[in-house]
Amino acid sequence: MNNEQIVFNKVPDGMPQDDTFKYEDIDVIEPSENELQLKTLYISVDPYMRGRMTNADSYVDPFKQGEPFNGHTVSKVLKSKDSNFDEGDIVVGMLPWRKINTVNSEYVNKVPTSDVPLHLYLSVLGMPGQTAYHGLLDIGQPKEGETVVISAASGAVGSVVGQIAKLKGCRVVGIAGGDKKVNYLKNELRFDAGIDYKKDNFPEALKEAVPNGIDVYFENVGGYIGDEVFKHLNTHARIPVCGAISSYNHPEKDIGPRIQQTLIKNQAMMRGFIVAEFADGFKEASKQLAQWVQENKIKTQVSVEDGFDKVPQAFRNLLTGDNFGKQVIKVASE
Amino acid sequence: MNNEQIVFNKVPDGMPQDDTFKYEDIDVIEPSENELQLKTLYISVDPYMRGRMTNADSYVDPFKQGEPFNGHTVSKVLKSKDSNFDEGDIVVGMLPWRKINTVNSEYVNKVPTSDVPLHLYLSVLGMPGQTAYHGLLDIGQPKEGETVVISAASGAVGSVVGQIAKLKGCRVVGIAGGDKKVNYLKNELRFDAGIDYKKDNFPEALKEAVPNGIDVYFENVGGYIGDEVFKHLNTHARIPVCGAISSYNHPEKDIGPRIQQTLIKNQAMMRGFIVAEFADGFKEASKQLAQWVQENKIKTQVSVEDGFDKVPQAFRNLLTGDNFGKQVIKVASE
Repeated sequence: MNNEQIVFNKVPDGMPQDDTFKYEDIDVIEPSENELQLKTLYISVDPYMRGRMTNADSYVDPFKQGEPFNGHTVSKVLKSKDSNFDEGDIVVGMLPWRKINTVNSEYVNKVPTSDVPLHLYLSVLGMPGQTAYHGLLDIGQPKEGETVVISAASGAVGSVVGQIAKLKGCRVVGIAGGDKKVNYLKNELRFDAGIDYKKDNFPEALKEAVPNGIDVYFENVGGYIGDEVFKHLNTHARIPVCGAISSYNHPEKDIGPRIQQTLIKNQAMMRGFIVAEFADGFKEASKQLAQWVQENKIKTQVSVEDGFDKVPQAFRNLLTGDNFGKQVIKVASE
Repeated sequence: MNNEQIVFNKVPDGMPQDDTFKYEDIDVIEPSENELQLKTLYISVDPYMRGRMTNADSYVDPFKQGEPFNGHTVSKVLKSKDSNFDEGDIVVGMLPWRKINTVNSEYVNKVPTSDVPLHLYLSVLGMPGQTAYHGLLDIGQPKEGETVVISAASGAVGSVVGQIAKLKGCRVVGIAGGDKKVNYLKNELRFDAGIDYKKDNFPEALKEAVPNGIDVYFENVGGYIGDEVFKHLNTHARIPVCGAISSYNHPEKDIGPRIQQTLIKNQAMMRGFIVAEFADGFKEASKQLAQWVQENKIKTQVSVEDGFDKVPQAFRNLLTGDNFGKQVIKVASE
């Protein structure tokens, strides 16, 4: 059986290049006691991974040069040396980017049902869904009738944030890049407005879309998009800060208006977070999100790239916004 | 009897100039039913007033051109047409900058005791004390053993913040400009460290002063001082944002590193506030602050300028940092 892994080869300067990633042929390992041999079905690429491709201090451990990247995956059990797992079980876990992983069973969890598209466990039923749920509800605390604005609104996190906000009775305004994404927000997800940040009239369009100001801004991108949004905050606005993807490749150039006077003027609150903070609430959120998906109250958009060799390009597409919806790589069929 | 007022004459461009202020001779008004005639003893000048000298939207109503400035004052009742007030009573209130005010009694409150220096009702026993108390305790929520950093630390608000933080068992680091203020922080207020932001080694000195990082940053100044502090935040740091005095004269030039990535990295919270939000807690805080002052647990430094004609210069000293401690103007003796 053929096995392969993708190793963190070189710290990128700006956008990750082909030499950031190195493919290596490796052996397939037989499982020992309590271990599982797993076939990777889907690999998730997520914006936060750019922050791990560095030597700098970050909120997650940086990837180690010379070792494989890792991230959330959906896998199928090929061989089990743990009586709690059977051959054919579908599991999720934070695993190395390999075609075949052999790991202690404590690193993975069985999915509650394989009766849904399995890549959903990497989006709404996985980490991005949890991020959206807790960032919006625990930090943003939207109330019925309030206005919620979301950047990167068609993405894996943003699309779920907006749909939950709609379920809570809010006016929802999504910011995304390009007609296709903006139309999706308005026509498919039924947001109240979709704004294209790539258009010259972005500031005016945003202003028109928030006639009652902004109560919650779910921040995914930072940069000048955030700067514009901050101009329309209401008193006691809440800003869950989930990401700043516009600046990941060039953090040293992330210069703009300082936020202090805006926060004072609006008595506003800004809170950076990572999903791991909310581990105590994962179970409850999973149940609620699964129910909403089942009832078709939350829709998802997925970009599937086919093949283990597509990982670098899929990751770059994420940083440039060339993907659409949750970006996953299909590594193998069930 | 001679009366005079100071009118908002012209919106300043940058630092307020002499023509921002206009002195006018006016009549003394006899009080009608429920009114008091008051002799102004002390006038407070505070940094937030710069934000009111504008045509722009702010968190407090802008001063109106052609009308007198107003702010917190300590006054003595000359004549009373309200049975709850007697001639000679000392009152505080937000009043026009006049030597003699005639106002409805609902605009003022009697001081609990005139057995303390009366200007304390404009500092620790007044609005700056409330600002310090609620900003630190309600938003900053310092815990014993944590590190609290304060900018403009020798000022009316900052000095109280730091002393409360010491009472709560925190390591307290104050940032101020010049040896005199820094020595005051260390020797008089017993802060654990005082840092001079005007010295070239400010970044290094700050870093050395916070070996365990920063848990609470009480922000009064913004600008590059804030930028440096943000480099040392701990996970779950809290940042009550009270002011950004470094940028009040040139808000359009308030450009620096955006904060989003820093907040995510540290899962930190930043919250702008104004003291009026905490009105429900004023009574409790007043009692506690008065007790601490009485027990000599909170000391205060006051800069008194003598004479109604000194108001413009005193206000400018505040913006440049040329004052030391709470800036008040003594308008008349009791």
